[in-house]
Amino acid sequence: MTAPPGPRAEPAPPAEPCTVGIDFGTLSGRAVVVRVRDGEELGEAVHVYRHGVIDGTLPSTGAELPPDWALQHPEDWRDVLRHAVPEALAASGVAPRDVIGVGTDFTSCTVLPVRRDGTPLCLAGRGDHPHAWPKLWKHHAAQGQADRITGLARERGEPWLGRYGGRISAEWQYAKALQVLEEDPATWAACERWIEAADWIVWQLTGHESRNACAAGYKGIHQDGGYPDEAYLAALDPRFADFPRTRLDHPLSPPGSAVGTLTAGAAAWTGLPAGIPVAAGNVDAHVSASASGAVAGGRLLAIMGTSTCHVLNSDVLAEVPGMCGVVDGGIVPGAWGYEAGQSAVGDIFAWWTSTGLPDAYRAEAARRGLDAHTLLTEKAARQPVGAHGLVALDWLSGNRSVLVDHRLSGVIAGLTTATAPEDVYRALLESTAFGTRVIVEALGRAGVPVTEFIVAGGLKKNALLLGIYADVLRRPVSVASSDQAPALGSAIHAAVAAGSHPDVRAAARAMGRVERAVHRPDPARADAYDALFAEYRLLHDHFGTGPDRQLHRLRAIRDAARSAGVPYAG
Amino acid sequence: MTAPPGPRAEPAPPAEPCTVGIDFGTLSGRAVVVRVRDGEELGEAVHVYRHGVIDGTLPSTGAELPPDWALQHPEDWRDVLRHAVPEALAASGVAPRDVIGVGTDFTSCTVLPVRRDGTPLCLAGRGDHPHAWPKLWKHHAAQGQADRITGLARERGEPWLGRYGGRISAEWQYAKALQVLEEDPATWAACERWIEAADWIVWQLTGHESRNACAAGYKGIHQDGGYPDEAYLAALDPRFADFPRTRLDHPLSPPGSAVGTLTAGAAAWTGLPAGIPVAAGNVDAHVSASASGAVAGGRLLAIMGTSTCHVLNSDVLAEVPGMCGVVDGGIVPGAWGYEAGQSAVGDIFAWWTSTGLPDAYRAEAARRGLDAHTLLTEKAARQPVGAHGLVALDWLSGNRSVLVDHRLSGVIAGLTTATAPEDVYRALLESTAFGTRVIVEALGRAGVPVTEFIVAGGLKKNALLLGIYADVLRRPVSVASSDQAPALGSAIHAAVAAGSHPDVRAAARAMGRVERAVHRPDPARADAYDALFAEYRLLHDHFGTGPDRQLHRLRAIRDAARSAGVPYAG
Repeated sequence: MTAPPGPRAEPAPPAEPCTVGIDFGTLSGRAVVVRVRDGEELGEAVHVYRHGVIDGTLPSTGAELPPDWALQHPEDWRDVLRHAVPEALAASGVAPRDVIGVGTDFTSCTVLPVRRDGTPLCLAGRGDHPHAWPKLWKHHAAQGQADRITGLARERGEPWLGRYGGRISAEWQYAKALQVLEEDPATWAACERWIEAADWIVWQLTGHESRNACAAGYKGIHQDGGYPDEAYLAALDPRFADFPRTRLDHPLSPPGSAVGTLTAGAAAWTGLPAGIPVAAGNVDAHVSASASGAVAGGRLLAIMGTSTCHVLNSDVLAEVPGMCGVVDGGIVPGAWGYEAGQSAVGDIFAWWTSTGLPDAYRAEAARRGLDAHTLLTEKAARQPVGAHGLVALDWLSGNRSVLVDHRLSGVIAGLTTATAPEDVYRALLESTAFGTRVIVEALGRAGVPVTEFIVAGGLKKNALLLGIYADVLRRPVSVASSDQAPALGSAIHAAVAAGSHPDVRAAARAMGRVERAVHRPDPARADAYDALFAEYRLLHDHFGTGPDRQLHRLRAIRDAARSAGVPYAG
Repeated sequence: MTAPPGPRAEPAPPAEPCTVGIDFGTLSGRAVVVRVRDGEELGEAVHVYRHGVIDGTLPSTGAELPPDWALQHPEDWRDVLRHAVPEALAASGVAPRDVIGVGTDFTSCTVLPVRRDGTPLCLAGRGDHPHAWPKLWKHHAAQGQADRITGLARERGEPWLGRYGGRISAEWQYAKALQVLEEDPATWAACERWIEAADWIVWQLTGHESRNACAAGYKGIHQDGGYPDEAYLAALDPRFADFPRTRLDHPLSPPGSAVGTLTAGAAAWTGLPAGIPVAAGNVDAHVSASASGAVAGGRLLAIMGTSTCHVLNSDVLAEVPGMCGVVDGGIVPGAWGYEAGQSAVGDIFAWWTSTGLPDAYRAEAARRGLDAHTLLTEKAARQPVGAHGLVALDWLSGNRSVLVDHRLSGVIAGLTTATAPEDVYRALLESTAFGTRVIVEALGRAGVPVTEFIVAGGLKKNALLLGIYADVLRRPVSVASSDQAPALGSAIHAAVAAGSHPDVRAAARAMGRVERAVHRPDPARADAYDALFAEYRLLHDHFGTGPDRQLHRLRAIRDAARSAGVPYAG
């Protein structure tokens, strides 16, 4: 389950202080050992979660999960501390005593019900209750709750709603919590604290609860010093009125602050010195800004992997329709941090290569020693813009921004019996670029201009994809130098927590790195993409905001059929 | 290239008169030897065309063909006479002297330019001109011409337009001919006769030209005794005014009539006796009605293979929007014969199994000795109606009825990253059923009710598909007994031409066979399909008849990009 330690980058000079950043992703966790002087990554290791994304059956009972559920196993996360951290340390050649701090980041909103001592309910005798398990960010089964949260807030004119683009996502803390309350009141009653995994993992390191301002702001509706008020929550459901007071409330720690020190137990797991400072928890995307030259205003950082998260700092507070959120100091203290996202990006490409790759293509890939993505990318790159005749909607896992609607689904238009696998692949790459353009245009219209697009995450290595983004966005595309921007960002925050740099901005300058304008728009291709984007926009508006809610009905038909329909054969 | 002769069904009793029916399909030709007394099929053989569908490069020069082109090679057709007929005869055990007539049918509108003596231009020194080659029915590159033919006819109020549902298809004689004239005037000048392959093959058997009333009526705009008048054609293009007079005009022969006798040369090719009657040419779908119990009114016969052709007899003359045509005596003398069609059906399923079948599925199919279709069908059959959450438009090769528009293309809506290959497969099966329902409803609204749906052709063996059709159409689905309905129909017509039966109706009663109501609608599934059909209808109308001609623009973008766009890599 653990990747072999990589080669050591270079010998660490004696007594050079280092920090460790640990990034908890969707399928694996990664640790990196970083030199605080210049951000040099000296060693890393990955630990793949044993249970991965739990979306088929519950590990404890084998019971089948309903559609749109996605859970995780807390022990998988602790295993990252036990395996990836010591292995990264070994790979770096850094002596444990030279590690002066540790920082973490997590997917979000990944959230779990725990006892007052931090024990996850799924490991405390309620493992047979699906709602006792951590809900992964892409658990999309609380759309009904999200709709009511948004609808009631709109009706009552709740002041915080505009900060979230006018819609509270089904992915976030309140919708997921309300789903537990409504569908499994006993588990809700047993839930003493409702906590982001980002804060839970810090609890495992420090031995006491802390809450980070970033997740609380973006995912927990914490604005202007408080949570939604009890009257609003009581109107939603009387049993929900005390939710923030009993299960969330806790002092919030700003990004880069120290929230405690490493316990002896966590030191034993990780091989790090007990007592070193531990930084406040972080959301993976947001912490990447420090690592990727994206702290200054106007620089939109896209962390592109299975999904894409966009973060952007600005001096300006604006309410941008369909954004995930804007939080004061949510990314770095002293700026308004904006977040937007696309719920599936790499997931869409992976869906196609696993669904739409015929034998002959696999054979060619095997013969030439290429992976499926590389082969399809090579074939797709040969096509002029628009030559496939297709346009697709990138909603195969719903739409996080700007429609904030997880009942939406994907559409491909323009298919013919001559449509080849690379045609669909290219159209899917483009659909995600178009989805990003919708976000960038919404920010611009609201007075938060985007001047540069910076890419981090696994997809940054796909030059065709980034070229398409440059052309579709008509903006230079820069590339984060680190392959592990979130982990590096966590290490940067750890360096601030340890006092090695005065603040996140200074640490980011010293330790982050980006290659500027690696891809620039080509005018002819950008013109051609304007025409295709116009088609995307039409499709987007027809299916996303038009009066005919066809994709919603298809989803309802699907869900009803799965529970009660009559097949042709057993 | 030739399939091995099948086992002989039973010994033919001595001196039982037989006929031979020869069916020219899209990829192969098939001969069947049939007892005229009862229609028993005594032997058959298939000959696969060496060149198949010519849609990549021209055989003579290797030149690349533009998109939407589809040609065939006349020598492939003559090879069917040389190989399939003698092999069918050998397989049947019937003595050549007991064969008393021969009939043929052909895909349509498959049409070619020939010299006055019947020599195809592509074999007469013009082989390097793409326009000198036979255009297969699914040559879809004359949509521009079809639009102008329809537009001008509408403008001038041409009386025949309503007989073709208000639109002349790009697949038919006039659009294809006008494309030759406009794009290659020299080949047009060299074209002395413009002839359906259905009539050309009869010419090869009898040594002289004949024209069948069926193809002339459906594909050649022959109505009420004449072709479109010269003033209309001159308004289309002055050079086109003499088209029917110089290149089409010829006495028309009704279905089942004898148009000549077998020449010595054709007897040598086929092994049949020289001098036996040869029946008038036929369109494959229409001739199948006699073989499949579909002669009486209200029985819609669908010949379902790569595409579907629907034929239906009625006492009533109605102008049905979007039908391919209604022709007096077009199917059997004495009834109005209606034709409708779907340009791709089996082609769509084949597209998906060749595009969307991942390794693991192929491995499972291989392990269990199943073909891809069978495996996907088995998995798809287990799903309740609507459980995949998808709805698709079956326009992957354009729409023949009721929109008559080959610039349209396919759409799939409702995709998620959990969408499996069998989900898409099932949605594509359903999309063709929905397309058929649109046709059936259009007929009903125009006063031509459909009471029974009869299936012939290769897809009749797919029980899931036929069950879906029964449920979607809410009508019993009957199944033609013969696996070779067109060839059997041709043999039935040959028996009429030979005088063994008084007319086509009587011969069809004696020689045709159908299993009635093999599939009946299931009320619960039919209800569920009503909901999905409503979604199909919305998608159909939005993309097919709505003000936003998005699929047309995508097609135009595609065509422009292919000729002049800028790729990312060579």
